[in-house]
This record gives sequence, structure tokens and C-alpha cells, in this order.
Amino acid sequence: MPYINLPEGLPGIRGPLAFRPETAKPINALAEVLLRGPSTLTPGERELIATYVSSQNDCFFCQNIHGAIAAYHLGGNEKLVADVKQDYQGAGVSPKLKALLAIAGKVQQSGKYVTEGDIARARREGATDLEIHDTVLIAAMFCMCNRYVDGLATWQPDDPDMYRARAALTAQGGYGKTP
Amino acid sequence: MPYINLPEGLPGIRGPLAFRPETAKPINALAEVLLRGPSTLTPGERELIATYVSSQNDCFFCQNIHGAIAAYHLGGNEKLVADVKQDYQGAGVSPKLKALLAIAGKVQQSGKYVTEGDIARARREGATDLEIHDTVLIAAMFCMCNRYVDGLATWQPDDPDMYRARAALTAQGGYGKTP
Repeated sequence: MPYINLPEGLPGIRGPLAFRPETAKPINALAEVLLRGPSTLTPGERELIATYVSSQNDCFFCQNIHGAIAAYHLGGNEKLVADVKQDYQGAGVSPKLKALLAIAGKVQQSGKYVTEGDIARARREGATDLEIHDTVLIAAMFCMCNRYVDGLATWQPDDPDMYRARAALTAQGGYGKTP
Repeated sequence: MPYINLPEGLPGIRGPLAFRPETAKPINALAEVLLRGPSTLTPGERELIATYVSSQNDCFFCQNIHGAIAAYHLGGNEKLVADVKQDYQGAGVSPKLKALLAIAGKVQQSGKYVTEGDIARARREGATDLEIHDTVLIAAMFCMCNRYVDGLATWQPDDPDMYRARAALTAQGGYGKTP
């Protein structure tokens, strides 16, 4: 049972977003720019960063919905998503994405944990300033979303098909386009 | 030295906001709704929540700028801001705000740490669903902002007068109105 009287039948963040449209609008706008806007990181790579951070924060809803969106963008490769969550250094992603995931993992704990060495490694693997910026902000944004979703004790169903179906809608249409 | 090439002379979050206007817009819009929009919590109370969470995250820039904005809204009462950061249960704020700060403090650690007991206490002190929602989201938002500011190693000057001057501008004009 959610801690406040959220609209029924909307899992995870969708309950509080519908409860407070005034804050939903900028949250969806931020997700849209960071995860689906023009970028030299693919939508799949950015959703993997979101999924990994949500997994480290143990947020069931966010890691499953963004994991499903990542898999959608990656041609249905759910195994790669699971691999990144379990051990991204050994997963089949680029060295650059591994370096960015290392930064995201530090940000998940505290912004202060990111070191010059983490940044230097990302640059060596070809990351640009904008890619480093967006990685830090995606990781930080999911530290917000995960706390929003769990702090209100939202409904988080466990049927994988629900996440797959919703992921297809969001991957195609965008954030905040369908309630 | 910031980790990426941010515009010079802009402290804290203002550097990355100027670096990436596309993400600055929704971040400022979210701050504007949550901290200055219509609410039964005063702007001073909401800025105290932001300040307390930033202090718990040890983010120098955010706790000082939002502490200065809180003090501005509270008639210049910088001592109250310091008291809330050090020991809010003993500070001169309402029992309702103390209960909301307790929720915010849990969210700062993890959304999962918020208990039914925390919510029941806030309700006993008169908190509404919307006030609880906004407290959780303010706390979550500052877990994002603190990580954004520290994860990029932004410039965080220590002159209190800089924070006071900027706070007056923001308190009067709003978030994102002056770069």
C-alpha cells in the first residue's frame, strides 16, 4: 500500500507522477532529454546506465522498467541487461560504456566518490565532456527517481510482461506521452 | 578544477546548468514548482528540507546556497538554519516540520528506509498527502542535485556573502531566472 493516496493501477513512478502533474512535467522532460534526446550515447547505452544505478539502489520498479526499455533498444537483448546489472566489467558492452558505468556507480554512492582517475579512464576510452556530464546527471537523476518511487512505497508489480509492454510504449513514444 | 570544461565563474550547480541548457530547463522548473510554487509549506520550510538533505549529503554548495535562501525567507534567521542542520529535533521549527525532516532524512539514505511509523507521525502532526509527497520529492531531488554538483567537482567558493547575495536574487526572482 502506498503511503499516500495515489491513483490506483499505475505502477512505480507513474502513481506519484499522476498524483502531482506539476512536478511530473519537468521530471518527464528531464528524462526525455537525458535518455532519448540527441546524444552520442545510444538510447540503449543511456538506459543501461539508468538500469545499473537503479539496480545498485535496489529499486525494483526502476531497474525493471528501464531494464526493459534498454533491452527494447538493444534488439531485445535481455541477457545483456542482466549481465550489466550483475557484472558490467565482464559484460559485452564497449570499454567506454564500462568506464561511464564506473562513474555512474560512484555517483550512486556519492558524487564525492568520483575521482580524477575515473574521469581519465573515461577520456582514454573516448568519452567526451558531454558524455561524462550526461552520465553523472543520469546517475544522479535515478538516485532521485529511485528514492521517489521507494520513499512513497509505490505499487511495483512483478510480471515481466507488464514491464516489456510498457517499455515498448515508452521506447517508441517517449517519457510522459502516455499516463 | 571541475572534471569537465564548465563555463568559468559560475559556482556549484550553475556551471553544469550553463553547460547543458537542455537539462537546466527542467531542473530549474522542478525546483521552481517544489520550492517556490503554491504549497501549504512555506518557501522557508521547503528550503530547510533542501538544506538539511544537502547537509546530510555533505554538499557544500547546495547546503550553503539553500541555507542562505532558507534564511532569507525566514527573515534572515541564519541561526535557525544552522540549528536545523545540526539537530533539527531540538531546533525551533514546528512539530510537523520535524516529522517531515525525519522523512527527508530517511529518503536521503534510501527511499526504502521510510517507514509507516514515519508517515503516521507526520500525519499526527497535521501533514497532508501533498506535503508528504513534496517532502519525499524535495529530498530525492536534492540527492540528485548534490550528486550532480559534487560528481563533476564543481567550483564551490566559501565566501558566505556570495551565497547571501545569490540567495536574495533567487528568493526574489526564482530558479533559472538569472544565469
